[in-house]
Amino acid sequence: MSDLPKMVQINEEGPREGFQFEKGPIPTARKIELIDSLSQTGLKQIQVASFVNPNAVPGMADAEEIVAGFKRIPGVRYTGLWLNEKGLQRAIASGRVDIVGSLSLTASETFLKRNQNRTAADDLAGERRLAKMYKTYHIPVERISIRAAFGCNFEGEISPSKVTFLISQLAELANEEGFRIRIVSLADTMAWATPKSVKRLLAAVRELNPDLTIALHLHDTRGMGIANAYAGLEMGVTIFDGSVAGLGGCPFAAHKGAAGNVCTEDLVFMCDEMGIETGVNLEKLIESALLAEAVVGHRLPGSVIHGGSLARLRAALGAGACS
Amino acid sequence: MSDLPKMVQINEEGPREGFQFEKGPIPTARKIELIDSLSQTGLKQIQVASFVNPNAVPGMADAEEIVAGFKRIPGVRYTGLWLNEKGLQRAIASGRVDIVGSLSLTASETFLKRNQNRTAADDLAGERRLAKMYKTYHIPVERISIRAAFGCNFEGEISPSKVTFLISQLAELANEEGFRIRIVSLADTMAWATPKSVKRLLAAVRELNPDLTIALHLHDTRGMGIANAYAGLEMGVTIFDGSVAGLGGCPFAAHKGAAGNVCTEDLVFMCDEMGIETGVNLEKLIESALLAEAVVGHRLPGSVIHGGSLARLRAALGAGACS
Repeated sequence: MSDLPKMVQINEEGPREGFQFEKGPIPTARKIELIDSLSQTGLKQIQVASFVNPNAVPGMADAEEIVAGFKRIPGVRYTGLWLNEKGLQRAIASGRVDIVGSLSLTASETFLKRNQNRTAADDLAGERRLAKMYKTYHIPVERISIRAAFGCNFEGEISPSKVTFLISQLAELANEEGFRIRIVSLADTMAWATPKSVKRLLAAVRELNPDLTIALHLHDTRGMGIANAYAGLEMGVTIFDGSVAGLGGCPFAAHKGAAGNVCTEDLVFMCDEMGIETGVNLEKLIESALLAEAVVGHRLPGSVIHGGSLARLRAALGAGACS
Repeated sequence: MSDLPKMVQINEEGPREGFQFEKGPIPTARKIELIDSLSQTGLKQIQVASFVNPNAVPGMADAEEIVAGFKRIPGVRYTGLWLNEKGLQRAIASGRVDIVGSLSLTASETFLKRNQNRTAADDLAGERRLAKMYKTYHIPVERISIRAAFGCNFEGEISPSKVTFLISQLAELANEEGFRIRIVSLADTMAWATPKSVKRLLAAVRELNPDLTIALHLHDTRGMGIANAYAGLEMGVTIFDGSVAGLGGCPFAAHKGAAGNVCTEDLVFMCDEMGIETGVNLEKLIESALLAEAVVGHRLPGSVIHGGSLARLRAALGAGACS
């Protein structure tokens, strides 16, 4: 237990993940309302939109309108997602998104082949082009990530040595372009991780990359999200991605039940209750989660949103409401 | 990780928990169908009914019909629940339930007062009467349990020292009546536990009771169920209660979102994937979980039921279905 960190950062990805996944259509004004609500919770980073092909992802066709409409709060970093130069240019042109460069590789060659008709070499070459693009635009790159780092529905288990190999390839590539990587994000894109495999992979990555801070991006499709996050905390992980109310899911991962990221407020709840600082106000975040359900028009997977926080119960006890 | 046990037993409580919680009415034949389905999964213990006041728990008014109707499979223990001598007599009279004695205390005096108008002394006196009753009926008592062992919505946190005190009271009482306690079950009745508090309480209980096997009864109201079970596994816990598909919830615990026990198939999935033997066939259990949803007529909280197992994906990969 002594390994639990004192403080963690949770990066909110609900708006981007959710809006591109939900069948919708969701009015742009409602998307903006949710982002503005999240801005009031103490979250320090919120991914607000993806600048991708609107034909491929119709739920994000209004990316420019979304980012034009929300209210920027000082101290919060508002990020976007893009897959190519055109997307990056759109994000820059909006003037409303904090431009953060990152490089990613996918650990499953079968997935690459099936979904993008690319080889591992193609994947790496694409990231090299991206790195050069960031250099051209004077955008620093501090973070790399490995997708499907634990397993793949089309390939099976991914070995830790495959992941550490890809990390070394990306770090070397970044280094060649003059970037110094600080963070490596391990993404359980298709929900293959268990607490045991989280610990195994983290140990392997840390041993070979003692200077990198590890971040976890965990999907909850098979109900292991919070347990995997706890295993990460036990290994000292201090950066997690989350989705408010459990919004979203990967539309490309080919399983029907596709739950999205681990639920942000459930993660904040666990941290709060274990004495780990998140900087997030859980009660406000629960309000945002309730708003997220109203915006998408159906129940979302989060638990604390329905079960209620303990802080609220304690406050009622303190006030004598239950005496 | 070396502390993870090689083998665990999961006691299924879904039928009893679920049928007494669901608004229903659910036809008796459907309840029996679910029990018969669970009998085929490899589960070694299934709680099939509670012999309680039908006016208080209408969903269990057909307890006798349920237990008369299901097919007993050799090697499976079918248990029931009762709160007094009348209930025990009904269970014995049915001739269809494995009669297992146990003694319980509730760790929250506020809860006792509010919900049963009893003091801690009353609670203990009641268990003494129960112990004498078991003695009269020649029913051995091997298990004790502590309800609300982690916290209570009406009292707040419960200290480990309170729990160890109640365990010593129950063990002494059992000893006086000539029983030798082997198992102590810690119940997170109102979902206050976190992985950290699970570890803290287990350490405290084990230190003072090195000869007792610890069992965990975890509710998932705030999404911590599987993470708490993992923390238990890390502490070497080998007995867990579960509810298929996450059926049920405590109708007396006074929170709207009341989720029930940790979901059995999610727990089996985690164990399978971490190499911990459960004796349960996950694919068959998922079939039972789908049946449970059909029987209650709505979606249930389980994740693997919707996300699918990895074993099935691996089998498809092995068969070349995705090549």
